[in-house]
Amino acid sequence: MSHTKEQQWTEVRRTLAQVATGTKKAELVVKNGTLVNVYTGQLQAHTDVAVAAGRIAYVGDASHTIGEDTVVLDAKGRFIAPGLLDGHMHVESTMLSVTEFAKAALAKGTTGIFMDPHEIANVFGADGVRWMHEEGRALPLKVYTTFPSCVPATDNLEDAGAELNVADIEDGMTWEGVEGLGEVMNFPGVVYGDPKMTGEIAATCRAGKAVTGHFPSEDEPMLQAYIATGVTSCHETVTREQGLLKLQLGMHLMIREGSAWHDVKEVIKVVTEDHVHPGNIMLVTDDVYPQTLIEKGHMNHVVRRAIEEGVEPVTAIQMGSINTARYFRVDGDVGGIAPGKCADLLLIDSLKDMEPSTVITDGNVVFDGGELQMAFPAYAYPEAARQSVHLARPLEARDFALASSRKDAAAETEVNVIRVIENSARTARGTARLTVKDGFIQPSLEQDAIMLACIDRHHGTGQISLAFAQGFGLQRGAVASTVAHDSHNLLVMGTNSEDMAFAANELAKLGGGMVAVLDGRILASVPMVIAGLMSDQPLEVVVKEVQALEQAWKTLGCELNAPFMTFSLIALPVIPELRITNRGLADVDKFELIPVEIE
Amino acid sequence: MSHTKEQQWTEVRRTLAQVATGTKKAELVVKNGTLVNVYTGQLQAHTDVAVAAGRIAYVGDASHTIGEDTVVLDAKGRFIAPGLLDGHMHVESTMLSVTEFAKAALAKGTTGIFMDPHEIANVFGADGVRWMHEEGRALPLKVYTTFPSCVPATDNLEDAGAELNVADIEDGMTWEGVEGLGEVMNFPGVVYGDPKMTGEIAATCRAGKAVTGHFPSEDEPMLQAYIATGVTSCHETVTREQGLLKLQLGMHLMIREGSAWHDVKEVIKVVTEDHVHPGNIMLVTDDVYPQTLIEKGHMNHVVRRAIEEGVEPVTAIQMGSINTARYFRVDGDVGGIAPGKCADLLLIDSLKDMEPSTVITDGNVVFDGGELQMAFPAYAYPEAARQSVHLARPLEARDFALASSRKDAAAETEVNVIRVIENSARTARGTARLTVKDGFIQPSLEQDAIMLACIDRHHGTGQISLAFAQGFGLQRGAVASTVAHDSHNLLVMGTNSEDMAFAANELAKLGGGMVAVLDGRILASVPMVIAGLMSDQPLEVVVKEVQALEQAWKTLGCELNAPFMTFSLIALPVIPELRITNRGLADVDKFELIPVEIE
Repeated sequence: MSHTKEQQWTEVRRTLAQVATGTKKAELVVKNGTLVNVYTGQLQAHTDVAVAAGRIAYVGDASHTIGEDTVVLDAKGRFIAPGLLDGHMHVESTMLSVTEFAKAALAKGTTGIFMDPHEIANVFGADGVRWMHEEGRALPLKVYTTFPSCVPATDNLEDAGAELNVADIEDGMTWEGVEGLGEVMNFPGVVYGDPKMTGEIAATCRAGKAVTGHFPSEDEPMLQAYIATGVTSCHETVTREQGLLKLQLGMHLMIREGSAWHDVKEVIKVVTEDHVHPGNIMLVTDDVYPQTLIEKGHMNHVVRRAIEEGVEPVTAIQMGSINTARYFRVDGDVGGIAPGKCADLLLIDSLKDMEPSTVITDGNVVFDGGELQMAFPAYAYPEAARQSVHLARPLEARDFALASSRKDAAAETEVNVIRVIENSARTARGTARLTVKDGFIQPSLEQDAIMLACIDRHHGTGQISLAFAQGFGLQRGAVASTVAHDSHNLLVMGTNSEDMAFAANELAKLGGGMVAVLDGRILASVPMVIAGLMSDQPLEVVVKEVQALEQAWKTLGCELNAPFMTFSLIALPVIPELRITNRGLADVDKFELIPVEIE
Repeated sequence: MSHTKEQQWTEVRRTLAQVATGTKKAELVVKNGTLVNVYTGQLQAHTDVAVAAGRIAYVGDASHTIGEDTVVLDAKGRFIAPGLLDGHMHVESTMLSVTEFAKAALAKGTTGIFMDPHEIANVFGADGVRWMHEEGRALPLKVYTTFPSCVPATDNLEDAGAELNVADIEDGMTWEGVEGLGEVMNFPGVVYGDPKMTGEIAATCRAGKAVTGHFPSEDEPMLQAYIATGVTSCHETVTREQGLLKLQLGMHLMIREGSAWHDVKEVIKVVTEDHVHPGNIMLVTDDVYPQTLIEKGHMNHVVRRAIEEGVEPVTAIQMGSINTARYFRVDGDVGGIAPGKCADLLLIDSLKDMEPSTVITDGNVVFDGGELQMAFPAYAYPEAARQSVHLARPLEARDFALASSRKDAAAETEVNVIRVIENSARTARGTARLTVKDGFIQPSLEQDAIMLACIDRHHGTGQISLAFAQGFGLQRGAVASTVAHDSHNLLVMGTNSEDMAFAANELAKLGGGMVAVLDGRILASVPMVIAGLMSDQPLEVVVKEVQALEQAWKTLGCELNAPFMTFSLIALPVIPELRITNRGLADVDKFELIPVEIE
């Protein structure tokens, strides 16, 4: 703490003590609410909360703290709950800037998040993390950061825009508001002593911060080894049995309910049926799409789901507040309503509905009467952040023609095909027998084996990989995306080379995002100028653009649910079975690149 | 972490991972126990615990970790519980060195303590804290320290041997193993902004450590102010209502069961009747006398008391292990049985009896078959630590004659009398009408108003205060003690001046402790050569000496229970009503020195 910060800290504490004893008066008193006490698990009727200097001075009968200038907010018996905390999320998945996301989240009662900005880190490295972190620090939403641990996600199958190493993590741990190491996805590396994983975990523990985890396997010896190295949480649990096991082994269990992964229903049984002590359980979202923020909400939705599945409301709220604050060791500031804590309060009519009518952060009303009540500072991303698509040259139709390597003059050849699975992150390995014409392998609409390309967009190398994709059912046109987990190169897929080239070039002109084109015209686009991952537009604009894109995919013949999400995962070589990356076709099980054409 | 320490840390983690996956073999496997899982609250039968490099590598079916050289300890279905942690205690009250205390505590299943060495700090300042802290660091018992916050206890009524200031606390917070600020007793100072209190709390928070508290009042606004300034726990709660209130206000509640204060019965009702979530409740001992260690035990006794009062055994154990570890943020190392944690394990036959048959720390069996199984390093206190009684000159009988200030030649005078209360830390204000002879006020055996003296023993000033004490019922001889909370000057009390001088001089020769004398002979003594507070002898020797002293007090006419404990509190000017200090007679309510003789 600098001298000035310490002086401020001391002055705030002085003020709180004076207000508590009645010597000074409160700035705000929320009167007559039913306190949701996350410390004891009780509901306490007829409770006031007195606020000064952005923090809570008194909880109970606060009449003695009310003065002439005190703003008195009558809760009218509404529940007063602590602001909700999301213990693990990727803001980039919302397609919004941190600022625009904050507006949406606060309106739904989320007052703090722990974000893992590994998407932007894959594009811009530590700089990207820093921009988003700084953007967050200025907002009424409390944005804490876990420093991304696995950038790039793999080191032999793809090239991201940047990488983060132990030195970056060591530096990141010194930033105020960095509270841990981001999800350690490279669990084999952790278990088998990869020096980068070991070094990052050591640096994080040395700094006294949390090592967050991601362990999707059911291999118990590997899990115990993973935990033994110092990883203390996991959000990748999909079964009740694995959830129970992780809790028994001392892990903090993050149960997620995002747009794609709905784990609460199954995993919350550790509470409702196994009756474990719930103190080490946190509710999180992980990845939330823009429409979900409007249609369902954010952390309030996850808490509501837990209540719907039979968890006591106060316990469910604990899992979205104090349990998370305690895990990240910020419970001195947030997570509950008590003297000394930040005045982050929700006024809620019904715990079952979990729709806050009033949201207060640091003692300021930020949301009330259905509207945001304050202006949010605009964060100026540097120009470099908006220049993230670096192509060597404009794409041409011939860039998307895959030559056959056959020595004979056969008219057909067999190829590996990446077969997507609706609503899943996994792909299956498929094959197709395709025509060879003039030495080039022809895609086939009948077999639904169409051309897929992954183009380096970070380094301007001009590197392009080609492969075949199956399962989208595209009949016409082309699509492109710079959201392509985790390396976020430029993905293009289409039924003809001309539209593919057009889609790629148009997307580059937009500065990145997602686009659907047909016969040389743009059908729909979602521009994402910040790193090619996030729009600079408000939520409502982005939702409309996404809806138009969904419609455009249908127009192109695809009937899948949320196809561009499935498309954005097709380059992720940590999940089986086949993937495309900028380096080629990757066999995830063998962890190596393989030829498209089968010999 | 130094480079070497980090390398060790990394190597340990590597080894654990290898053992967990079966690549290396465990050093020790405790087989087939019933695990007390403090994370989930469950009992898990048929569980093994595999240990390597002093830590836990695997919990469950650990067959794959057993190799030729693995020591296999068959738990035979016994409970495997985490070593117990005492969240707040003063080792000096045991009258033992940290080493001798550790032997007794480990035999009872305490594997870690958080000590507040403010007694030795009152004698030797930061040096004293450091000696005890270093002694603790070398032991199989995990000795953590909270740096004493209120030395001296008051600043206008007494003189201690040393003082600790904000700079001392700032430095202390950098010592490895210092995990917080010791009980902040000066609660008015905290609430009203005393700069030392404010500075110490700020320094502690800045270092990310725990601010432990002591709030005995029922003034709620003061309590809320106290909490608002950053104090996060309290062990001074004697009623269920105050316990519930503190928990509701976000405090961590330490419920103590020591030799003198038996708070579990009443305060544990917050669990058994109010049914609060127990996660923020810790069991502690605070002050334990040597006999208690033999007759009842240590933390195992406190846990047993909670179970006797109706708390579920696993919950009671949580309150003496993981809850404490979490509060002090050392749960990455201790408090529960899981991969990565220190191998601090208890094997217990009956949770109801709570008598561990085997105690393991850092993977080593330290207690088994009724005996300690390892040698403990001897800590060499510096010679200065054994030279703590500094008298200006030997005492003489005439030093204990109190002259009357009456201008007239009256044969009688009225005096204030300190009236002790059996089994209580409080004293009452009394008066007595005493004879004046040759200008000196005569004590009176009939009225049980005998001479009491407090002599500076820290600075060699020769300063002596005299007063009258009532309630002990002494009929003959004299007693003396250098245990005199909190300033620990030299107290003497007796029926005649000759024996008083003799007692003081003999005690000084012994190097401090407690003594009872009659007619120029020592009846019994408990030498406490370390700082005049702690013996350098083993527990069994000290217990015998204390029993002899108890008998000696009886011989001198005193029928009170544990009278030398009551005697050791008679100089404590933070608890009402009247006290003697080196500066004179103190009126605690008025917080000022007053004359003995009433005008």
